[in-house]
Amino acid sequence: MRTIEWRDGTVVTIDQMRLPHETVFLEMRDVAQVAEAIKTMKIRGAPLLGVAAAFALALVAYNSKAESKRKLIDELEKAAEILKETRPTAVNLLWAIDRILNGARDFSGNAEDSGAFVVEEAQKIADEDVTANRLMGKHGAELLHDGDVVLTHCNAGALATVDYGTALGVIRAAWEQGKKIKVIATETRPKLQGARLTVYELKRDGIPVTLITDNMVGYVMYKRLVSNVIVGADRIVRDAVINKIGTYTIAVLAKKHNIPFYVAAPKSTFDLVHSSTDVTIEERRPEEVTHAGSQRIAPEGVNVLNPAFDVTPLKYVTAIICEDYVLRKEDFASSKLVYK
Amino acid sequence: MRTIEWRDGTVVTIDQMRLPHETVFLEMRDVAQVAEAIKTMKIRGAPLLGVAAAFALALVAYNSKAESKRKLIDELEKAAEILKETRPTAVNLLWAIDRILNGARDFSGNAEDSGAFVVEEAQKIADEDVTANRLMGKHGAELLHDGDVVLTHCNAGALATVDYGTALGVIRAAWEQGKKIKVIATETRPKLQGARLTVYELKRDGIPVTLITDNMVGYVMYKRLVSNVIVGADRIVRDAVINKIGTYTIAVLAKKHNIPFYVAAPKSTFDLVHSSTDVTIEERRPEEVTHAGSQRIAPEGVNVLNPAFDVTPLKYVTAIICEDYVLRKEDFASSKLVYK
Repeated sequence: MRTIEWRDGTVVTIDQMRLPHETVFLEMRDVAQVAEAIKTMKIRGAPLLGVAAAFALALVAYNSKAESKRKLIDELEKAAEILKETRPTAVNLLWAIDRILNGARDFSGNAEDSGAFVVEEAQKIADEDVTANRLMGKHGAELLHDGDVVLTHCNAGALATVDYGTALGVIRAAWEQGKKIKVIATETRPKLQGARLTVYELKRDGIPVTLITDNMVGYVMYKRLVSNVIVGADRIVRDAVINKIGTYTIAVLAKKHNIPFYVAAPKSTFDLVHSSTDVTIEERRPEEVTHAGSQRIAPEGVNVLNPAFDVTPLKYVTAIICEDYVLRKEDFASSKLVYK
Repeated sequence: MRTIEWRDGTVVTIDQMRLPHETVFLEMRDVAQVAEAIKTMKIRGAPLLGVAAAFALALVAYNSKAESKRKLIDELEKAAEILKETRPTAVNLLWAIDRILNGARDFSGNAEDSGAFVVEEAQKIADEDVTANRLMGKHGAELLHDGDVVLTHCNAGALATVDYGTALGVIRAAWEQGKKIKVIATETRPKLQGARLTVYELKRDGIPVTLITDNMVGYVMYKRLVSNVIVGADRIVRDAVINKIGTYTIAVLAKKHNIPFYVAAPKSTFDLVHSSTDVTIEERRPEEVTHAGSQRIAPEGVNVLNPAFDVTPLKYVTAIICEDYVLRKEDFASSKLVYK
């Protein structure tokens, strides 16, 4: 199945905190349930967050008893506020909400028809995500070659999207073309999306994967075990890629070792009206760092930093793979992207 | 108490795998018990491994019923073989064993006197370690200033030595001089020595410490939150510092951000007849990576890399602090160290 599905008034998704140990499906019937699942990272991954927010608004529209379109819009706007407060960094969530809201406002029709439009639009966003990932896979696979070992961070896979994945979509496409590639997955503390989700996805597809701890990235590059890096993105701003904490560390190491560093992300991840200094980097609960899984690892009461994302200036990025094309470093200047 | 103590035929040490949750003392009475504690990292830290090996030989001498000095030497050599096979990378273990063996061979006296010499020599090695750490602290503290935030990796503290520590010894000395410094400790996957041991030691001493995951190092440097890096070493060879996995990643990032990178290690860690290519990097059990503590985090059957150490070429090292002096980058060339 897809990572998230709309089933007549119920949004069904996989609880990503329970993977890989258990496959548990969440059935959500209102905005509060979706918002809670996003906050607790049962639903995560920038593109998936966008689709989940869209489906949450679809739930509002589907269940609405609004007698006028104005009242429906009010309900949608109230829900949008709740959703926007769940996580501040990934832009796809804001993008999807704005697309639905603006679409509903512009739609000419009564409350019922407008509600139906919202549900359809959400499904369209989900379908478009799958198409975008397939296209990114097609474009990005050209960058990979027989014998390559691709290092990836966090999970930018089917689980971070509706299906197929961004960074893992590129890897999957190359693999499906018969290219003999291997993957090195970083475990990605504190939430271990690499160890739990990326390894799970790649093993399921039979793509060879080796798991390392995050602090082994320098070592595997020093030992020339890595040909390319491909990661996803939570937001691409004018001067930088904002992605899971640890991405910047990998990018600096890749540049030092002359290893291409690719970012795969759909256009819904681009936010070219902002720069990196405009973006709030989410600081999450200290318990994520003082614990691994449910187990406490550090003494009680220790100070902790827990930024969920970091900022990789574009000078570290070799190319950005999106659904329309591969934007290479030399093209950054002619795009709205700022190379600095 | 000291991290390790000799008590008339018993070697007492703290089980470092149980910290910080429980303080459990191990009482070891033969070489096999010491070797097992080293292999399972209940005893760890390069200087401490040397002292533990010395005390293991002291146990052999103490319990020996050898009727001739030749037979005692045979027994010591047999024990030395067992100890040398426990862990291949840290040189202090080899250094201490060779010092005891050579000393015993050169000693003129019968079996009983030679045995007493071995016990005394082991205690001397332990005492010298404490003295060396105090001197390193004195020299190294000159490099730290009010307001500095020092990033350290793994645990190069009292627990990695007999007392006071190497990298943490420098931090302690600066703190005792009244310098207002703070520490950032990396958690140090897979065995979490930073989260478990460094945080524990620093909190106990009242030195402010903030815990981060290993992949946050780039972020904290990018945000200019770090003034200096100080780490210990498992072996310093002609061209590189070999230390806990993750050290090289931190060194590359430090250089990129113009942050001084210091190594604190006693002369027993220097191995200037070898280069980095001569040294075996220990590869440990995959379960250390697939698990965090006792909890499985990755799917069954995944491939894993688990090198316990990495290689940091000297060009990334600003200075090496040892008990005699601070060896600065500009002095590497005139020493036996090779700058490349």
